[in-house]
Amino acid sequence: MIETDVLVVGGSAGGILAALSAKKTYKDKKVTVVRMTKKVMVPCGIPYIFGTLKDTAKNVIPDSMLTNAGIDIIIDEVLKIDKDNNLAVTRENGEIKYDKMIMATGSLPLMPTFIPGYDIENVYPIKKDEDYLKIVQESINNANDIVVIGGGFIGVEMAEQIKALDKNVTLIEIADKLLWQAFDAEYSDMVEAIIKQKGVVIKTNTKVTKILGETKVEGVELENGEIVKADIVILGMGVVPNTKLAKETGIKLNEKGAIVVDEYMRTSAANIFAVGDCAEKKCFFTRKNVPILLASTAANEAKIAGVNVFNLRLVKENKGTISAFSTKIYDTAFAAAGLTEVQAKKEGFDIVIGEFSTMDKHPGSLPNAKSIKMKLIFSRYSGVIIGAQISGGESVGEMINILSLAIQKGLTASELNTFQTATHPLLTASPVSYPINSAALDALSKM
Amino acid sequence: MIETDVLVVGGSAGGILAALSAKKTYKDKKVTVVRMTKKVMVPCGIPYIFGTLKDTAKNVIPDSMLTNAGIDIIIDEVLKIDKDNNLAVTRENGEIKYDKMIMATGSLPLMPTFIPGYDIENVYPIKKDEDYLKIVQESINNANDIVVIGGGFIGVEMAEQIKALDKNVTLIEIADKLLWQAFDAEYSDMVEAIIKQKGVVIKTNTKVTKILGETKVEGVELENGEIVKADIVILGMGVVPNTKLAKETGIKLNEKGAIVVDEYMRTSAANIFAVGDCAEKKCFFTRKNVPILLASTAANEAKIAGVNVFNLRLVKENKGTISAFSTKIYDTAFAAAGLTEVQAKKEGFDIVIGEFSTMDKHPGSLPNAKSIKMKLIFSRYSGVIIGAQISGGESVGEMINILSLAIQKGLTASELNTFQTATHPLLTASPVSYPINSAALDALSKM
Repeated sequence: MIETDVLVVGGSAGGILAALSAKKTYKDKKVTVVRMTKKVMVPCGIPYIFGTLKDTAKNVIPDSMLTNAGIDIIIDEVLKIDKDNNLAVTRENGEIKYDKMIMATGSLPLMPTFIPGYDIENVYPIKKDEDYLKIVQESINNANDIVVIGGGFIGVEMAEQIKALDKNVTLIEIADKLLWQAFDAEYSDMVEAIIKQKGVVIKTNTKVTKILGETKVEGVELENGEIVKADIVILGMGVVPNTKLAKETGIKLNEKGAIVVDEYMRTSAANIFAVGDCAEKKCFFTRKNVPILLASTAANEAKIAGVNVFNLRLVKENKGTISAFSTKIYDTAFAAAGLTEVQAKKEGFDIVIGEFSTMDKHPGSLPNAKSIKMKLIFSRYSGVIIGAQISGGESVGEMINILSLAIQKGLTASELNTFQTATHPLLTASPVSYPINSAALDALSKM
Repeated sequence: MIETDVLVVGGSAGGILAALSAKKTYKDKKVTVVRMTKKVMVPCGIPYIFGTLKDTAKNVIPDSMLTNAGIDIIIDEVLKIDKDNNLAVTRENGEIKYDKMIMATGSLPLMPTFIPGYDIENVYPIKKDEDYLKIVQESINNANDIVVIGGGFIGVEMAEQIKALDKNVTLIEIADKLLWQAFDAEYSDMVEAIIKQKGVVIKTNTKVTKILGETKVEGVELENGEIVKADIVILGMGVVPNTKLAKETGIKLNEKGAIVVDEYMRTSAANIFAVGDCAEKKCFFTRKNVPILLASTAANEAKIAGVNVFNLRLVKENKGTISAFSTKIYDTAFAAAGLTEVQAKKEGFDIVIGEFSTMDKHPGSLPNAKSIKMKLIFSRYSGVIIGAQISGGESVGEMINILSLAIQKGLTASELNTFQTATHPLLTASPVSYPINSAALDALSKM
């Protein structure tokens, strides 16, 4: 029988980082990852397989990350867990005896069983399996007309990537704006304008009532009766926690089917932790359950579980997700963290907005300088930042993480007005108009 | 007689931002900037005039920043201040009556009067004056052999830019490493290797004893007797506070000649504030005086002075400089904040180092992905971050500002291990190996 000190079930972002953190913290312990796929796809890299990378092999997280750290990998499926005896029963390798287990079983694409035709040929949910993605890629390459259902990050990124292959792409979103979970209208509208300008047909406020075709996709039917021709349909309608194993083990789930965890990522079962998409997510601001399933959130939880797996070392670090997002649509990066203006108002916050625009290099005449647009959302009375949205060049990708940290540490507008930064002509905005400082001052002047 | 509520003396980064902050905060007050130059150069952009921009006109901070905000500009020199009667005496415009004054008179290049020949023709300190810089530019364009004295940021950036014009460039530094104020040896060595590979001759540990030439530069003589041929010499030996006016006004200076200021940027004279290179700088960690004269530091102080000029609104925000730097040498960005390992040890800190390397996009196979190298320095017992150094692609420019904020807020290694970030394949490292999180874990595992 295989024995290990820590058994991590699942090998994507959450599983990898839980294993690495456990091994780095408890050097003498044996850490083993059991996962179903031979290779692991970079989860957020999947859309870029189709246009930019053109090869699933380029989107692999190398096993050397684990093996170099002295972590064992077993390719197998855990069929059952005997939690009272600390045993995992696998399909190929029999029982594995563990001391501690970290479940990182991830999520599965939401299948729209409410849309007739969802299960015919050439309807593709986005799964994190290399062999499957190769089939999707071939199918995309051979198609002319492609409908993407769902205008969240996966849907928008898939539409952008597939359009680069010179296909007819229609992106359909049921809500009135793309990326509405992360951005207020002025930013969503920018995203929409950019994609539209590249020739993607966008249909917001639009419900798909049927996927048409005898055996293979021929089109989709919309609520207003319109039919959009399609050779294939890509589904980007969200994901649901993959918790069948946890449920069968008798681990407590919440009403959405996610594993209930405490501040230290411990489940209701002794010695079993859970991290990532399979574990429930709380909102940083309200503690409500939120469906924000991101690799970066998984990574954060994985570190907490890994470091705490034998002793509690990180105290109250699972503070709830602040929903930090970033993406790049053609040449423009978009990023957000915390609450949008719409969400903040809906929750009942009394807010003050600070805004600023500037160039991301200084002088702005430098080659490749791009305009940055920033919106910060503060709680009026506490003065604390609760949300941020940015568009601009690639530097936006790390700039949002300054604001993400600021939100997590409860910084105020006056602190953000005067916090010290490094600035350089080729790398940042001018110190005279550093956008975080300036947007914070804009908010201060309204408080 | 001209009257104004706020008179800002000096029109570079500190002056502009002091005026803007005052006007944004006190909308009904009249704010006036008096400055000597017709146009204002982006200070940190000056090296890039010579290679990248090729035109001083492209390196101008537009006056519209001030005029659009309703701020008056007077091109003139303040000759005298009658601080008891709140009067500034100018060369062209007679007396200006003010209610509050913010001095932002900046700095002047350090002139090496101890090097014979420092004052002959074709020896160029870097001044922030457009007409002067046009002369320097023409002189550089006509030269073949150029010696740059001083291996700090200005010297290194000048050497990189001039080399791009296909000149013979020798960079001479008296200390044993380039950029030693900001980086430990392993990062300085990377900078040195990159520049050397592009053909710049680097002489560290080298003292210039004489600038040779009857009336014009012909070469420089080194301590070991070696002579380096040169048509022109660029001086990048640092700057000194420009405080003649403050001194004559009877404002208290420190032993280095910088204006003494309090937590609110107030000088010893009632109603007179001082910001930027002319004001004294304290170290964030030790409160010692430090010679870190940066536009970004000036900007930070300017905001504090501007917002506080009529009422104290920002409490204890002048926390001392954390010395946050960034630059880009050819394709590699370098950045630092806080103390280096050498400085921390010298000050007597018991430290733990956390290090990590990864790619700045994920998967690393994406086009233009670059390797990031990060070093974090923590105080062992408090666990608090006191320093950071990074090299990598352009995202380093904002990544250092995450760490800059972390240092200012006293974040611990465990907080930095688990702080939540936005990650995206095209914009950041993988969530599995986000470098700040991972370098913090590396340090934690050694504590």
